[in-house]
Amino acid sequence: MFQEGDWILIRYGEKRYLRKLQPKASINVKKDVLKFSEVIGKPSGVRIGNFEVYKPTLEEIIVLGFERQTQIIYPKDSFYIAFKLGLDKSKRVLEFGTGSGALCAVLSQLAGEVYTYEAVERFYKTATKNFKKFGLGDNVRFHREDFMEAQVEEGFFDAGFVDVREPVPYIGKLHLTLKDGAPVGFLLPTTNQVIDLLKALEGRFGGVEVLEILTRHYKTVPERFRPEDTMVGHTAYLLFCRKLKS
Amino acid sequence: MFQEGDWILIRYGEKRYLRKLQPKASINVKKDVLKFSEVIGKPSGVRIGNFEVYKPTLEEIIVLGFERQTQIIYPKDSFYIAFKLGLDKSKRVLEFGTGSGALCAVLSQLAGEVYTYEAVERFYKTATKNFKKFGLGDNVRFHREDFMEAQVEEGFFDAGFVDVREPVPYIGKLHLTLKDGAPVGFLLPTTNQVIDLLKALEGRFGGVEVLEILTRHYKTVPERFRPEDTMVGHTAYLLFCRKLKS
Amino acid sequence: MFQEGDWILIRYGEKRYLRKLQPKASINVKKDVLKFSEVIGKPSGVRIGNFEVYKPTLEEIIVLGFERQTQIIYPKDSFYIAFKLGLDKSKRVLEFGTGSGALCAVLSQLAGEVYTYEAVERFYKTATKNFKKFGLGDNVRFHREDFMEAQVEEGFFDAGFVDVREPVPYIGKLHLTLKDGAPVGFLLPTTNQVIDLLKALEGRFGGVEVLEILTRHYKTVPERFRPEDTMVGHTAYLLFCRKLKS
Amino acid sequence: MFQEGDWILIRYGEKRYLRKLQPKASINVKKDVLKFSEVIGKPSGVRIGNFEVYKPTLEEIIVLGFERQTQIIYPKDSFYIAFKLGLDKSKRVLEFGTGSGALCAVLSQLAGEVYTYEAVERFYKTATKNFKKFGLGDNVRFHREDFMEAQVEEGFFDAGFVDVREPVPYIGKLHLTLKDGAPVGFLLPTTNQVIDLLKALEGRFGGVEVLEILTRHYKTVPERFRPEDTMVGHTAYLLFCRKLKS
Repeated sequence: MFQEGDWILIRYGEKRYLRKLQPKASINVKKDVLKFSEVIGKPSGVRIGNFEVYKPTLEEIIVLGFERQTQIIYPKDSFYIAFKLGLDKSKRVLEFGTGSGALCAVLSQLAGEVYTYEAVERFYKTATKNFKKFGLGDNVRFHREDFMEAQVEEGFFDAGFVDVREPVPYIGKLHLTLKDGAPVGFLLPTTNQVIDLLKALEGRFGGVEVLEILTRHYKTVPERFRPEDTMVGHTAYLLFCRKLKS
Repeated sequence: MFQEGDWILIRYGEKRYLRKLQPKASINVKKDVLKFSEVIGKPSGVRIGNFEVYKPTLEEIIVLGFERQTQIIYPKDSFYIAFKLGLDKSKRVLEFGTGSGALCAVLSQLAGEVYTYEAVERFYKTATKNFKKFGLGDNVRFHREDFMEAQVEEGFFDAGFVDVREPVPYIGKLHLTLKDGAPVGFLLPTTNQVIDLLKALEGRFGGVEVLEILTRHYKTVPERFRPEDTMVGHTAYLLFCRKLKS
Repeated sequence: MFQEGDWILIRYGEKRYLRKLQPKASINVKKDVLKFSEVIGKPSGVRIGNFEVYKPTLEEIIVLGFERQTQIIYPKDSFYIAFKLGLDKSKRVLEFGTGSGALCAVLSQLAGEVYTYEAVERFYKTATKNFKKFGLGDNVRFHREDFMEAQVEEGFFDAGFVDVREPVPYIGKLHLTLKDGAPVGFLLPTTNQVIDLLKALEGRFGGVEVLEILTRHYKTVPERFRPEDTMVGHTAYLLFCRKLKS
Repeated sequence: MFQEGDWILIRYGEKRYLRKLQPKASINVKKDVLKFSEVIGKPSGVRIGNFEVYKPTLEEIIVLGFERQTQIIYPKDSFYIAFKLGLDKSKRVLEFGTGSGALCAVLSQLAGEVYTYEAVERFYKTATKNFKKFGLGDNVRFHREDFMEAQVEEGFFDAGFVDVREPVPYIGKLHLTLKDGAPVGFLLPTTNQVIDLLKALEGRFGGVEVLEILTRHYKTVPERFRPEDTMVGHTAYLLFCRKLKS
């Protein structure tokens, strides 16, 4: 049952809102009003007028609730990344840079431990604030430093993910701190970055794959079933590879 | 270090092979031979001639190692499904039908418990064989029965996923056995199935979304970076919704 | 050389404007001004400050210059349709409904004659106005009537294209007025319409194909070559078939 | 009515065949046989057993009938290119290299005159043979020479299209031989080629657009309407621009 202080996901037709359940608050959509006092004590999935109220999923928290200092890694990409890195509760994964923490939140659900590094002070603050706000990430260690400066022993990580503008200078240190054969991923918005990285990986990382993930959403009216008029055309290229034994 | 009996992932250029590490075995690709005896005692990520040898990830086990009696749910879809259902180690998830077990293996990594139901004897045998072969799924309960026959108490599951040809007759029982507000997903190859299901969900499930996931793979030659010539054009439509409180 | 009264296409970075060249007019974009008096007497392709001025193509006239009472058929679709119908200057093609005339303008470039029918008075007026405004379509015969009412002899058309909400009732008349083996196309926004039409065509039209055309546009900065962030997700399904001899 | 010597398009379910109508010939598909003698004197659109026979369209001639020495430019791309270049019967268009002539055949339907250049002897022979075989292209002038060697006066062409591996060296001559403001297109399989060309065009060509065209085909069974399992993932990037006045 919903209690004061819970995060709630409100749906009104296609619209979605993430709100904190405060008894005196309310939400207005078109000519309808939902008083939050009416939600308290009700179960997830309750309908009140034209509103539906649910306990939010991690996806909804990230997309609707995370404060953003940077372009976030979207669920279509982060869900794929987390599994593609071969993570499970026995694995320790490296991530840099943290950005707003959107990927980090997904990695932390699947991995045993997440070590994340962020050189930019205000990104670090945003990410840690996002995690605190939604009670996420007991298994995440945030580092406010450039991964290049990090004190990490050799072969420490089971997997890694890199989301920085220029990943090439980090390749050496990345290689050193990963276990042999460890899966690694990179997020790269432009083809130029992919081309440069492909060259830099040669001889040190093998099993290279590059792909994009596109999601196509549909209108849900059964009498007129058809795709949405517009779609996200691009977020980034994903490159996956594995550390070759030196 | 690789030991006799381990599963190994062998890469040779773009080609991938999953094999059991038996000391007398070997693999021939073009004019190259890899003797498995040379792999024993080596770390993941080792290069031997033109071969690279890795510890396989869950994705590689499913795609290359699972025996298939049915069309499997591919990683591009299953990775998304698992997170979209809001799973974590505190959640109990329902799945039917099991099919060859490809989605089940992914769900079991993220969820606390998986209850999976399969009416067809030979699919049930294939799925359980696949899990046994690769040592997967301590938290999975396989049921060799149609979910319609299953003895389950009301509000038992935190989430559910349905992959059967005609999901509409199951909607009532599904609704009954889910917790209020629980996320549910459906895999539907045709638009006709989506249209029929959208009608059947009205009033009982809310927050409906329908989407497709497309992955576009690229050739990894840095001097000629471009998409692959052919791509998977369709696997299935994914429909997600949530149980409305009756 | 540009003369008073010409239509001109103005580019300013990514932005495009279609304007009539009137000597006293001008255009303001950001902090730049282009006085049209400066364009008179200049050739297409002239640069004036940050502006480029070109003679418009048919695509630019349709997309930027046509008044719209309806959703137009976009170039990505209309260019494909015109050739797919096997048109050349020896062919007479049927179209209904005319809508705003966007497809009609494309058909008229490739076909010998276009007969177009539109039941709705205000669409008919918009289409004829668009053609007059840009001096298009000497070979187009506009009919302000529902095609069902049209007086046309049997086997009159070499090809046909249908863009009405409910095409099924027209199938009989369409069949009658086409030459044997003639190619026909349909524009259908929803899957439900495709499903209904596929059923209605059986036995009377053969060689059925259904497809969608997606265009993916890229940012043109060579140092950061990547797709645009958003793209058109759907316009319509295109169905092509041919009249079977009765 | 079909006569001896005509080209015919035969459909058998999803399969398509282009054949010359020779009275003693026949075709076997599965357990069915179509004797060509039965087709003579019949109209396009005739059904004979499980076969349908049509007069072929230009698309079918190109895709099924053209001999290929090179990767051809597919209809999805060539139909778009022809209109995008602003062609009509009053326009003279340049093309190089000719390749197997697939784009040339499409350009010739829409343009007044096509001048096409091909440096490789065996491509030139294939293209001219393809045109002769199907009676195409009265308005096409084939040149067996590299466009760099061609004697062409300044400002001769209304539009141009370039399909050679390294287009950059041709940019100067291309600019010289086009009319001011003329539209030009390029076909580029790799992102590296696009990046190099974007740099080379700066200052000489304006209004640059880069795009890809994807076609998604559907199975045509009305009870199970869904996309095909596989699709063409990539043919090439298309770049369009216009000659800036020097």
